[in-house]
Amino acid sequence: MSTLIKGGTVVSPTGAAPADVLIDGERIVALFAPGSAPEGPEVIDATGKYVIPGAIDAHTHMQMPFGGTEASDTFDTGTKAAAIGGTTTIIDFAIQRYGEVVQDGLAAWHGKTADQCHIDYGFHMIVGGVDDESLKAMDQLVASEGITSFKLFMAYPGVFYSDDGQILRAMQKARDNGAMIMMHAENGPAIDVLVKQALERGETDPVFHGLTRPQELEAEATSRAIWLASVAADCPLYIVHLSASKALEQVRNARDLGRNVFAETCPQYLYLTLEDQLGAPGFDGAKWVCSTPLRSGKESHRADLWQGLRTNDLSVVSTDHCPFCMKDQKEMGIGDFSKIPNGIGSVEHRVDLLYQGVVEGKLSLARWVETIATTPARMFGMYPRKGIIAPGSDADIVLYDPDGRTRISVETHHMNMDYSAWEGWEIDGKVDTVISRGEVISRNGEYTGRPGRGKYVPRGLSDYLV
Amino acid sequence: MSTLIKGGTVVSPTGAAPADVLIDGERIVALFAPGSAPEGPEVIDATGKYVIPGAIDAHTHMQMPFGGTEASDTFDTGTKAAAIGGTTTIIDFAIQRYGEVVQDGLAAWHGKTADQCHIDYGFHMIVGGVDDESLKAMDQLVASEGITSFKLFMAYPGVFYSDDGQILRAMQKARDNGAMIMMHAENGPAIDVLVKQALERGETDPVFHGLTRPQELEAEATSRAIWLASVAADCPLYIVHLSASKALEQVRNARDLGRNVFAETCPQYLYLTLEDQLGAPGFDGAKWVCSTPLRSGKESHRADLWQGLRTNDLSVVSTDHCPFCMKDQKEMGIGDFSKIPNGIGSVEHRVDLLYQGVVEGKLSLARWVETIATTPARMFGMYPRKGIIAPGSDADIVLYDPDGRTRISVETHHMNMDYSAWEGWEIDGKVDTVISRGEVISRNGEYTGRPGRGKYVPRGLSDYLV
Amino acid sequence: MSTLIKGGTVVSPTGAAPADVLIDGERIVALFAPGSAPEGPEVIDATGKYVIPGAIDAHTHMQMPFGGTEASDTFDTGTKAAAIGGTTTIIDFAIQRYGEVVQDGLAAWHGKTADQCHIDYGFHMIVGGVDDESLKAMDQLVASEGITSFKLFMAYPGVFYSDDGQILRAMQKARDNGAMIMMHAENGPAIDVLVKQALERGETDPVFHGLTRPQELEAEATSRAIWLASVAADCPLYIVHLSASKALEQVRNARDLGRNVFAETCPQYLYLTLEDQLGAPGFDGAKWVCSTPLRSGKESHRADLWQGLRTNDLSVVSTDHCPFCMKDQKEMGIGDFSKIPNGIGSVEHRVDLLYQGVVEGKLSLARWVETIATTPARMFGMYPRKGIIAPGSDADIVLYDPDGRTRISVETHHMNMDYSAWEGWEIDGKVDTVISRGEVISRNGEYTGRPGRGKYVPRGLSDYLV
Amino acid sequence: MSTLIKGGTVVSPTGAAPADVLIDGERIVALFAPGSAPEGPEVIDATGKYVIPGAIDAHTHMQMPFGGTEASDTFDTGTKAAAIGGTTTIIDFAIQRYGEVVQDGLAAWHGKTADQCHIDYGFHMIVGGVDDESLKAMDQLVASEGITSFKLFMAYPGVFYSDDGQILRAMQKARDNGAMIMMHAENGPAIDVLVKQALERGETDPVFHGLTRPQELEAEATSRAIWLASVAADCPLYIVHLSASKALEQVRNARDLGRNVFAETCPQYLYLTLEDQLGAPGFDGAKWVCSTPLRSGKESHRADLWQGLRTNDLSVVSTDHCPFCMKDQKEMGIGDFSKIPNGIGSVEHRVDLLYQGVVEGKLSLARWVETIATTPARMFGMYPRKGIIAPGSDADIVLYDPDGRTRISVETHHMNMDYSAWEGWEIDGKVDTVISRGEVISRNGEYTGRPGRGKYVPRGLSDYLV
Repeated sequence: MSTLIKGGTVVSPTGAAPADVLIDGERIVALFAPGSAPEGPEVIDATGKYVIPGAIDAHTHMQMPFGGTEASDTFDTGTKAAAIGGTTTIIDFAIQRYGEVVQDGLAAWHGKTADQCHIDYGFHMIVGGVDDESLKAMDQLVASEGITSFKLFMAYPGVFYSDDGQILRAMQKARDNGAMIMMHAENGPAIDVLVKQALERGETDPVFHGLTRPQELEAEATSRAIWLASVAADCPLYIVHLSASKALEQVRNARDLGRNVFAETCPQYLYLTLEDQLGAPGFDGAKWVCSTPLRSGKESHRADLWQGLRTNDLSVVSTDHCPFCMKDQKEMGIGDFSKIPNGIGSVEHRVDLLYQGVVEGKLSLARWVETIATTPARMFGMYPRKGIIAPGSDADIVLYDPDGRTRISVETHHMNMDYSAWEGWEIDGKVDTVISRGEVISRNGEYTGRPGRGKYVPRGLSDYLV
Repeated sequence: MSTLIKGGTVVSPTGAAPADVLIDGERIVALFAPGSAPEGPEVIDATGKYVIPGAIDAHTHMQMPFGGTEASDTFDTGTKAAAIGGTTTIIDFAIQRYGEVVQDGLAAWHGKTADQCHIDYGFHMIVGGVDDESLKAMDQLVASEGITSFKLFMAYPGVFYSDDGQILRAMQKARDNGAMIMMHAENGPAIDVLVKQALERGETDPVFHGLTRPQELEAEATSRAIWLASVAADCPLYIVHLSASKALEQVRNARDLGRNVFAETCPQYLYLTLEDQLGAPGFDGAKWVCSTPLRSGKESHRADLWQGLRTNDLSVVSTDHCPFCMKDQKEMGIGDFSKIPNGIGSVEHRVDLLYQGVVEGKLSLARWVETIATTPARMFGMYPRKGIIAPGSDADIVLYDPDGRTRISVETHHMNMDYSAWEGWEIDGKVDTVISRGEVISRNGEYTGRPGRGKYVPRGLSDYLV
Repeated sequence: MSTLIKGGTVVSPTGAAPADVLIDGERIVALFAPGSAPEGPEVIDATGKYVIPGAIDAHTHMQMPFGGTEASDTFDTGTKAAAIGGTTTIIDFAIQRYGEVVQDGLAAWHGKTADQCHIDYGFHMIVGGVDDESLKAMDQLVASEGITSFKLFMAYPGVFYSDDGQILRAMQKARDNGAMIMMHAENGPAIDVLVKQALERGETDPVFHGLTRPQELEAEATSRAIWLASVAADCPLYIVHLSASKALEQVRNARDLGRNVFAETCPQYLYLTLEDQLGAPGFDGAKWVCSTPLRSGKESHRADLWQGLRTNDLSVVSTDHCPFCMKDQKEMGIGDFSKIPNGIGSVEHRVDLLYQGVVEGKLSLARWVETIATTPARMFGMYPRKGIIAPGSDADIVLYDPDGRTRISVETHHMNMDYSAWEGWEIDGKVDTVISRGEVISRNGEYTGRPGRGKYVPRGLSDYLV
Repeated sequence: MSTLIKGGTVVSPTGAAPADVLIDGERIVALFAPGSAPEGPEVIDATGKYVIPGAIDAHTHMQMPFGGTEASDTFDTGTKAAAIGGTTTIIDFAIQRYGEVVQDGLAAWHGKTADQCHIDYGFHMIVGGVDDESLKAMDQLVASEGITSFKLFMAYPGVFYSDDGQILRAMQKARDNGAMIMMHAENGPAIDVLVKQALERGETDPVFHGLTRPQELEAEATSRAIWLASVAADCPLYIVHLSASKALEQVRNARDLGRNVFAETCPQYLYLTLEDQLGAPGFDGAKWVCSTPLRSGKESHRADLWQGLRTNDLSVVSTDHCPFCMKDQKEMGIGDFSKIPNGIGSVEHRVDLLYQGVVEGKLSLARWVETIATTPARMFGMYPRKGIIAPGSDADIVLYDPDGRTRISVETHHMNMDYSAWEGWEIDGKVDTVISRGEVISRNGEYTGRPGRGKYVPRGLSDYLV
């Protein structure tokens, strides 16, 4: 049975134009100029709405084990919240820890997602222990498992940390098999010194989480990753959750040279600050403890990040969704900020939060769609199946109402969190209708999806390389 | 009557995917996933072909008066050659000279094009005499004439040259009315000194045309235009025919700051050199006398320009098509290179020459289409009518055969020139079919268009600004 | 008869050390380690004092004709004030105007200085009309007249302005004869547009002098001069009165490449601002009308200039001393800022004002001496005769009292001005004793010099080139 | 008894001028203008000679244990060779290894030097194990031992390597006590990967020593050290043996910001290449195995380093003198380049090799003296006792004959090496006479010094900071 989305304005990375979209089954089968579509199909009236590709969140951590607890959204709760917020695909992270077998980690994550997801999903692989065996596994994942991106950590010594020799080896492997290296770029060993010194001085409040992670240590690690990638013959490199002006400068310099260096930022870095959120009185700042941390509002980080999105030095907006409740979870760090689980949950709000940038003139409509949907799809090998309104693509479609209005609150959100990092924010625009592989799963606030309907998306190599 | 382009691969700036394209009258009315199109329409088999938007050449000079002669292609011969080469829209330059009324210049060019063009066309306006009256005229052209871009010259003192005060005033006007300032960025007064000195030393051969226009004087003028635009509150600025590494560096620096600074390059700068072509024995180098000049092959200009296309520091490839015959025209400069009419003709070959970059791995398929079609349309206010394969757009479509092969020669080209700047070049790929507003005007080398079928395209403001 | 300066700390560009200085006649004949000097000579006790080379002001305009009036200090009054302030050599500017003979201009200035100067002096030559004849004259001045630096103007169209072709020709000449090109780097034609527009809007107050000369137009001209010098095979270039961060950036970029590009700044740019001084209520701001103008205190200009002095991207501090009285002179611009004579007088205070930078930790003692004495001497071909405390050098010496205190006021200054640009400033340090060619001309505030004792210093080529 | 050096040209960092130098005992007591010196003292005729401060080699490794052997020059042989070559002070490196007590290391080196040195000497301290105890020791060395510079290694994991946390802690300590951090800036963990891979591929020749240490890994570490120093509140940082263009770029960028970041290079990087020397046939390349390695002659490293010396982005030329004989020492690495002891010996030739740069127009006379003598003295807290010809300074003086000629060979050199890295080089200029603390120890090739006459020089804090 087919459905026609009629009367809307289709937005793509090159602009917006009126068109009707015909869905048949799970796919888009045709686009029509206004007035040219056949009669017959069921019609969804999109008059006054933007018709955009379902958004892709390329960085989430559902039910991720961290510091003795686990991210509070399961794949069930988290993907449902994502769906309601206009995201129709996530890429989560399967984890291999030092000493574990990579494929075992992947299997574990397939286990967690089985029959749980409301929307389609893929996996990046965290390689926590680069050695001969895990390097070999990388080839197998690329060739047979639809996993073409591998995340390493320059932070968290003793946990996920890779030293520069390990990083170089993984990059050489990626250069050979075509995969993308994703990097958490913070200088962990130096940060650990600052954290220890702060705690010794009795600086235990959440704000010291940020103050012990100065932007120079993000910029340094970003720069180092870029140098190492050049030694690995320009292995593709993607910097995750870039938060700071000086880190952005490193990425921009590499991109000026035509290097295959990319970066994402997240809504929290575009809007929130060290002073206003992380520095909230008492322990409240714990809500915004995440790494990389929120940056000072006295500096130009936020303006620079918006500019980076405009110039494509930042190519993607993901959430780094990694929610923890205050109760029992964040509270583990009362009296010692270093014990606060790191993470903020925004998977439900990314589409809206970025549209607010359009409203405020910080981002064009075309770039909005490109940064939240099209480029993630291209970057991570899912295009043109995902990320674009085009015939043959999956019918992952969002009708977005520019005249709507969204109010964010723990009272109303669907994420499994006992607070909202965006409590009370009222912004323009509203997700009106969400269609996932041809099925309307959310309309006018009524959610009709269900766990298990989301499918695993094996991914190809990036087609975003220069 | 409707036509279906079936079985091809549609290429857009975000990638390529199989789709069928339905044309009704002059417009594209639908795109279908393979197998989804209705039976009925006449079918053009595009199997094995790329289906791309008709290319747009945003910089041509048909029958332009220059140095006592006139560019050898008329709007008739030039637009026919363009059409055969896959270009379905040109933007030519109407001219106001110092002391003339801007609108008179425009009217003159409308006169020249009336009933002559084989394809659609628009005009930029050259303002050769910035003063109160011409500034006022700029407003009128933007508001009522569909002309939203104005070209100034930092070269050619005494001819088209504007001094920095005039440039600043025109930029302020453009900032206010939203138009784009296009700039011929070479330091004319300094070049004139070098030219005079060279001639006094008896250096009269064509190669001295290049040697008296060092890249530093292009870089300087490019930099100056960018500074002046910043004084004019970031007026949109588009550098024409950028040829040199150091000039590109100026553009890149501005773009890194998020400025509305753009640039085009031309096929000649991507492939040809001062030594190999301009320095050809005897007077032969005159064939390649153009300004900005060909650059030294011993430096990295060509590689840097290709890189600039990949990074979007160069956004557009135009031809600066300005052909002169050797006989009677170029020959005016025997014994004095400064009297050689400036210009190279390539309007017929741009699509092929750039596709060669795809074959050689210098440009992606997506960027090929973006730089020769989509971005010119967006940059100059013709999108989505032009520059994209989308429902509702003009049915300007090229079927491109990647398995074909193109040999360029004066024997076979259609431009009104008695030589080819690309004589003997054999390259991969071939324009197979050209459709202009729904009409097949060229197929398999058989040309069926006619003068006068091309229409004037009034343009809106650029939607490419950041 | 010989004199021993005993017990002081001699400061040089590499540091400070105790030493006694023996003067015989007009020259320094020996330096002794403490305790090693012979008995016999008359002793000047320098205990607790810095013994520094007499300062050199490489940029003054005594009794310069400008806008229908003349700078208010004669060579008599101006050099006396300089001497009292610790400056023992000035380099003033002889002027050739368009249509005049260069040598006539020089002769006129020799006429003005004859028997007038209290201290030694040299001339730079302003070439206001670059043509074949004046270019030839440049060779003669270098070869025979001791004039090795030539100033051009990118500002003041119709007065001193040279177009880029003229600039290039003068630079080529300088490259050949080894001279230095000094540049007033502001884009005059663009500034004139802004000035006219401001006046048309009724913006006539002094502050609009600054607002119509945005730093971008200084940076642009600075950049352009650097590009033109590169076309002239890296002719030595010296930017005068650099005032702004973005202009400094241009100089720094060139210096990073090892180019022979240098710049001076002036005390007014290091301390004063557009808001606080130029924007003073009513017409008071006219006191600080100078070009380049004072810059906004909301931006980082002053900090950047101090940093530039530390890094040697700014090599010299001069005054651009060009005083005009408020009465009858500055007042010419009431109701039209563009008619205010441009200039500030500080020739008497430079040594003190820069020492204040030492007190505040912005400049080392060694750099203080280097920027006000040694480098000017080296830059302009007077080293080692001037600019250093060394055997064989002219005995131009200042004893500087770090424990003294200086209060600046029109009540007490010696310049022929009816106001002080630094009224009421109290700063640390004090010029104690001034010795010019072996003669004590100022001691403890008692002045014993006289007009005519200063001699013309023919200069050699710069030995500061890299 | 006093001695007069008469008739020479004294060279300082600001220029050259004729002057006579009077020595009394161990110190310079006076400088005289020609003709002004008293009769009486013994005269050394310096006519036609440059009189320069005795050179300072701030980076030597006499008899250093390394890889199971020991550098072949003892403090006796090495300092004698240095003296003959015009170097009158060295700063060698005392070593603390992981687990050892810093002061024990220092004591050991005082033991090695006791009664051995022919010239004055100081120590830097290598801290091979940064921990609470060694950090405390740094304070003690600064306060009481005359050691104000501490060297860390980013290379050699398992030997001298410090991780980034350790580096940060040492930098914080240096920031507090005013010391200088010296850095061997190469990314050791990444290099070790490349070395292992090369050996596994059977790439065992000496040239692979260079190929496994790409400049990117020097640039990266240089950049990282600069970032870490910024986190330590701009702790003074000195990069040792900088060899490569991209590393220099990092230093330059920091210096452009006014940072206290400095670097030295060595003669080998200014003249020798990976292809010509390290890539010599057979095992011969082992002679030039040093770290950082010689760089490719196909790139612009050497020109860039000379430029860096001119612009002061490189402030010092040291030798990193660390000689090993081919026999028994270098030969340990036959069949495995990674076992070749790292080091080149040039302590005897630095003054001559750099003077060759003066002859070739790459360096001014003033910069020659500044980079080999004055700046090392200032940088490492020995000025004005060392590094300058001034009254009160130690009478460390070299008479340099610009008309002489030097031929370098193992046959004639005085270093304890069985080969010369500069075999057969013939260069202009010659060390004529060497005076160390008032004693002529080498004249016309006749050496009259003796072990034990050199004294330990306790050093103060750097006075070279900006």
